[in-house]
Amino acid sequence: MSDVYAARRTRLRERCHAAGSQSAVISHPANVRYLAGAAPTGSVLLLGKREDLLVCPGPPDDRPTEARPDESLRPHLLKGPGGDPAVAAADLAAAQDTDALAVEEHHLTVARHRALASVAPGLRLADLGSAVEQLRVVKDEEEISCLRIGAEIADQALGELLESILVGRTERHLALELERRLVDHGADGPAFPTSVATGPNSGRRGHRPTDRRVEEGDFLSVCLGATYRGYRCEIGRTFVIGTSPADWQIELYDLVFAAQRAGRESLVPGAAYRDVDRAARQVLDSAGYAEGLQPLTGHGVGLEIDEDPQLAPSAMGKLDACVPVTVEPGVHLPGRGGVRIDDTLVVRPEADGGPELLTITTKELLAL
Amino acid sequence: MSDVYAARRTRLRERCHAAGSQSAVISHPANVRYLAGAAPTGSVLLLGKREDLLVCPGPPDDRPTEARPDESLRPHLLKGPGGDPAVAAADLAAAQDTDALAVEEHHLTVARHRALASVAPGLRLADLGSAVEQLRVVKDEEEISCLRIGAEIADQALGELLESILVGRTERHLALELERRLVDHGADGPAFPTSVATGPNSGRRGHRPTDRRVEEGDFLSVCLGATYRGYRCEIGRTFVIGTSPADWQIELYDLVFAAQRAGRESLVPGAAYRDVDRAARQVLDSAGYAEGLQPLTGHGVGLEIDEDPQLAPSAMGKLDACVPVTVEPGVHLPGRGGVRIDDTLVVRPEADGGPELLTITTKELLAL
Repeated sequence: MSDVYAARRTRLRERCHAAGSQSAVISHPANVRYLAGAAPTGSVLLLGKREDLLVCPGPPDDRPTEARPDESLRPHLLKGPGGDPAVAAADLAAAQDTDALAVEEHHLTVARHRALASVAPGLRLADLGSAVEQLRVVKDEEEISCLRIGAEIADQALGELLESILVGRTERHLALELERRLVDHGADGPAFPTSVATGPNSGRRGHRPTDRRVEEGDFLSVCLGATYRGYRCEIGRTFVIGTSPADWQIELYDLVFAAQRAGRESLVPGAAYRDVDRAARQVLDSAGYAEGLQPLTGHGVGLEIDEDPQLAPSAMGKLDACVPVTVEPGVHLPGRGGVRIDDTLVVRPEADGGPELLTITTKELLAL
Repeated sequence: MSDVYAARRTRLRERCHAAGSQSAVISHPANVRYLAGAAPTGSVLLLGKREDLLVCPGPPDDRPTEARPDESLRPHLLKGPGGDPAVAAADLAAAQDTDALAVEEHHLTVARHRALASVAPGLRLADLGSAVEQLRVVKDEEEISCLRIGAEIADQALGELLESILVGRTERHLALELERRLVDHGADGPAFPTSVATGPNSGRRGHRPTDRRVEEGDFLSVCLGATYRGYRCEIGRTFVIGTSPADWQIELYDLVFAAQRAGRESLVPGAAYRDVDRAARQVLDSAGYAEGLQPLTGHGVGLEIDEDPQLAPSAMGKLDACVPVTVEPGVHLPGRGGVRIDDTLVVRPEADGGPELLTITTKELLAL
């Protein structure tokens, strides 16, 4: 893995040089992990003029061996509590005779930025922007493999829940149970707070579980994901509780399913982000649900659960191969509930079989 | 509650005026909650020259009725996705003929600060610093009551765990079980990631649960807390697994207990933060454990699990009445394990009976 991290740092260094900075301080945690492996919380990476250093607030935690920082990077431990690794990194950059240092202005607070500037007054501070986020968009097969395992874990957890008795249990309990099962099956933890929504809550994106209990006739929508070696995936499904769904439930489900399929089928290398969004959105629009639709149809996943690209009406850019994204349209009818269907897929060329579906739980409307 | 929030905003406004700003944008989530009630994620409070506004990224979530924003505050919903409520708030401040606007430079990123400055170029931006955090240090009885209920919930969850069979179960499972029990007993959720540490891991502050299983003869240290109506408390205890603890375990436990008691007993209004730390620390120091002690003995709790004051050797300031803090010394012996004992208490005058212990689970060394 050490070579992988070093190669990523080399690519970033080339971008920095092209933008006129000899060094950079990376402070955004997912970016640090991408370039330096799993480091203690709060660690900062110095991409130095002469040497790269991992500046840690303290000694590494007791972590599993697969999640350690890149061993080829020299760690620099802060002495004493309360120091800011980003400030120390700026100081160490200055000691390497740097004159221009790029920092992540979308992550550093104004107060930290000021502390950096004052510890190394000879240093010209520039903005690295989202250079690391851009490198992270296209994944290598090792990264995709982590997402694939995470998706398998989420599928397993969801499958087991469906075999248990659901009526009478609260949204909160079902969510906790799913999170326990994720960990049982080897996840580092949930990729994001598990959402379980019943009855009138169903179909709401990001619904926080309440004490409402599952009732006969409810829609039940569930959205969960596993983190595996730092990588986060997402699956969402909607079920109906009881023996037979009502007509309005079948119609709504079929509509959202058609929108989700249209989104999935438009995932080809070179497709514009906004066209993927439009493919799914226009199915819902033309059925009269233009109002109240969520602002996006899907998003990238990786070391963060919501990263670039955004599949939204005003998004700029085109899909590449090996970009994992969610496709997750939904409709929520106030007071009645709704449907959300959410998969994680990897964009692949048609010659390789088209988009690779990572979350394979059935999308038939199950009556539980 | 509306009056409480309005009174808090009045106190903050006085501080702003004294510092030369007519208005302020509050973006740090715990500070927004303190001044405006439970608002949708990402909301920002404008303390305006003429009117206060709660700027929300979208409509309020489906929350329990006890957790809503202050109804006396006019909400301002952003139109369209992707907007920054802080930027919109600066724009609204300018519309109220403000010329100086204080912002939270320790929370706003450089990029957001720049966006604020560019949307309202006539506005002079100043630093609010930690003015709201300072207001939050002393709690009212309503806040303390939320902490008290949270502590009762944590005590219950811990008590139930102690009645179950522990040998053979993993740290991860015990932590998940505790979190489930917190929610069962009415918590909004855990106050922080529950820490369960066995054998050689025991006694480590903030240990992340692993797949290690509880064994006979282990120390087991557990640290958990409940969030109740936004308020977060903390309890930590260490147990021994099996019929009788070893001599070194009894000695170490008695030592940490004595240090923790010394810290608790020094919690009086007017005591310097560093003196509370020293009271606990010197017990461990004089027994030869000066090396490797954690940098602090305790900290404030409230809307955040780790807030002012810090009870640490270099901390400046003195305790007031009605300040809730943790007292949590610990010793960890590499390769062997250790002991941590952690309570949440509220500083009270001696005339009122001295410090009020919120976490009442026994601190005897239990053999489980």
